[in-house]
Amino acid sequence: MKIEKKHDSKVCGTYHIAIEIIGKRWTGAIIFVLCYGSKRFSEIIDAIPDVSSRLLTERLKELEDYGILKREVSTDRPIQVSYSLTEKGLALKPILESIGKWAHDWNND
Amino acid sequence: MKIEKKHDSKVCGTYHIAIEIIGKRWTGAIIFVLCYGSKRFSEIIDAIPDVSSRLLTERLKELEDYGILKREVSTDRPIQVSYSLTEKGLALKPILESIGKWAHDWNND
Repeated sequence: MKIEKKHDSKVCGTYHIAIEIIGKRWTGAIIFVLCYGSKRFSEIIDAIPDVSSRLLTERLKELEDYGILKREVSTDRPIQVSYSLTEKGLALKPILESIGKWAHDWNND
Repeated sequence: MKIEKKHDSKVCGTYHIAIEIIGKRWTGAIIFVLCYGSKRFSEIIDAIPDVSSRLLTERLKELEDYGILKREVSTDRPIQVSYSLTEKGLALKPILESIGKWAHDWNND
């Protein structure tokens, strides 16, 4: 006998964790900035209004731990550190674009 | 002469606000629960692991202020308060589903 799992609308933990990673203060902005290619720390901070250097460092580390971005250090001098999205991070691009479209369509200003 | 606006990858404020509304602690979960129909406070709290009554009240008020959900009070006795998504809130459903899919595809457990 096939047992159908009833949809009970309980919030799935996997979804819950994901949406809070993406929506955590500055995280959505960081991912958005990196959707358009690899960036250095100073370029990221310039693109995001009001984020502090300490918080940006913390969020970049978290996103690296989640496998959403990678940190790369150049072997040439002067040494440059850059950040770019992994395949997992790039898979968020259409989602973030939909959020941007929703925001504009519904005037979240 | 047509002037093309250069895409400078600065984070758009409208998008930034939107993603932080959706991703704020518990908000994504509340919207998810209401995607499947109108719910009473007690049903929402049962569906979301670990949210406190105080925080749920606060988030429901914020989402009402953003026009994402509406609060309805029945005219019958006993008086019942229920919450449901507005058209603006329902427009988030495909986005939240994409986030759920992304989370499962990329194992954010």
